Amino acid sequence: MLSKNTVKFIKSLHQKKYRNETGKFFVEGEKSVLELLDSDYSVDLLVVTEEFADRHFSVLKNYSGELIEVTQNQLEQLGQFQSNNAALAVATCKSNQSFEVQEDELIIALADVRDPGNLGTIIRIADWYGIKKLVFSPNTAEFYNPKVLQASMGSFTRVSFFYEDLAQVFNRWKLPVYGAYLGGKSIHSLVKTSPGVILMGNESHGIPETLESSVTQKITIPGFGKAESLNVAIATAILCDNFKRLLS
Amino acid sequence: MLSKNTVKFIKSLHQKKYRNETGKFFVEGEKSVLELLDSDYSVDLLVVTEEFADRHFSVLKNYSGELIEVTQNQLEQLGQFQSNNAALAVATCKSNQSFEVQEDELIIALADVRDPGNLGTIIRIADWYGIKKLVFSPNTAEFYNPKVLQASMGSFTRVSFFYEDLAQVFNRWKLPVYGAYLGGKSIHSLVKTSPGVILMGNESHGIPETLESSVTQKITIPGFGKAESLNVAIATAILCDNFKRLLS
Repeated sequence: MLSKNTVKFIKSLHQKKYRNETGKFFVEGEKSVLELLDSDYSVDLLVVTEEFADRHFSVLKNYSGELIEVTQNQLEQLGQFQSNNAALAVATCKSNQSFEVQEDELIIALADVRDPGNLGTIIRIADWYGIKKLVFSPNTAEFYNPKVLQASMGSFTRVSFFYEDLAQVFNRWKLPVYGAYLGGKSIHSLVKTSPGVILMGNESHGIPETLESSVTQKITIPGFGKAESLNVAIATAILCDNFKRLLS
Repeated sequence: MLSKNTVKFIKSLHQKKYRNETGKFFVEGEKSVLELLDSDYSVDLLVVTEEFADRHFSVLKNYSGELIEVTQNQLEQLGQFQSNNAALAVATCKSNQSFEVQEDELIIALADVRDPGNLGTIIRIADWYGIKKLVFSPNTAEFYNPKVLQASMGSFTRVSFFYEDLAQVFNRWKLPVYGAYLGGKSIHSLVKTSPGVILMGNESHGIPETLESSVTQKITIPGFGKAESLNVAIATAILCDNFKRLLS
């Protein structure tokens, strides 16, 4: 049974303040919940409909946390989805720990990407291109924002990330940093490149000036028309595609 | 002065039904309104704040349609933006007329892309890559939906488009059709290509089976990770980038 306290707890996780305080987050919808259960995240609570429980009996057999069965109507009142006939899960956030890097890795760094939809889409793109490591400036959108998780389509379970001042990070790593600028070297003109960090800037202001001295090479997606810019997630996808093509 | 009838008229244009009946649409926000005034669209009505009128005096000098000055508060009640301190414009939709194509052109065709945000983003991408012609299946999102226009960031003024059964169109054009599939030829493996039509399918169901026989070559964006798919606007951007790189 769904207690009032559980309802209150899940609803509190819609707010960043309570996610930070409790170290918990939630995801909703069949795909995200299944991906979460299939990941190394620790799932504390599953709220499911009878249909979901029936359909995924074998998955739930291996789950040892708290399980609550509810109606679709009850489920929809817990989350943000207008329609959810499947499940919602509460899990424990990963701690903000930096990772080691190798010289042959491609990594994505985001400087102040603020829109949760953009961050989630970039995580999905990283996962598509097999890029497993992302690093975010402290002003980048919060990873466990429900809109980020939803836009990532389950890919959030397959990437490592941490938040830190990027200048410090780049200084420690000593990897080439490829910064996306409007006036850099055309990515189409490169015939080869080396792995390193693809650095993307803020939606309105681009890469902060304070990071310019950390950038090894300014790169640009060549434009052929009159649009002034591309959305940051679109630009990230195009740069990842070019890097993977050049490095494969 | 803003009459009740004008308010009612503009608000009716939020609905597709009234856009179809009247052949009019609206855009809001400084950038979109300025791009519209700088285009070949016929603008019937401009609703502006005093600040916008002052800032763009020289632009408004050349405008001969109806002009109404309002407060920011009044303006925000007409449109969909939470915040708009600039302008809103009503203009005449273009008629649904097919265009001629040349053998050396790159064209985008969308089969049942339903999400207005995706359509608008694809229009912006087309404009970035200098692709001026798009063709849509009748089930694709409506071009003059305010969400489409907003996501296009003004690029909607610089493309030609029409809606028609795509099989008929491809049959008439006799251009190569490159269809985006999950199991086609890797776009990275192509060393050259010819211009033609880049065909993208529906968000959930891909390219309809009925169009498969029109496809000259199935192409794919190679994946290196575990994400099952890419968003259709992201995929369009990556394909356009590869085609422009190969053709330039």
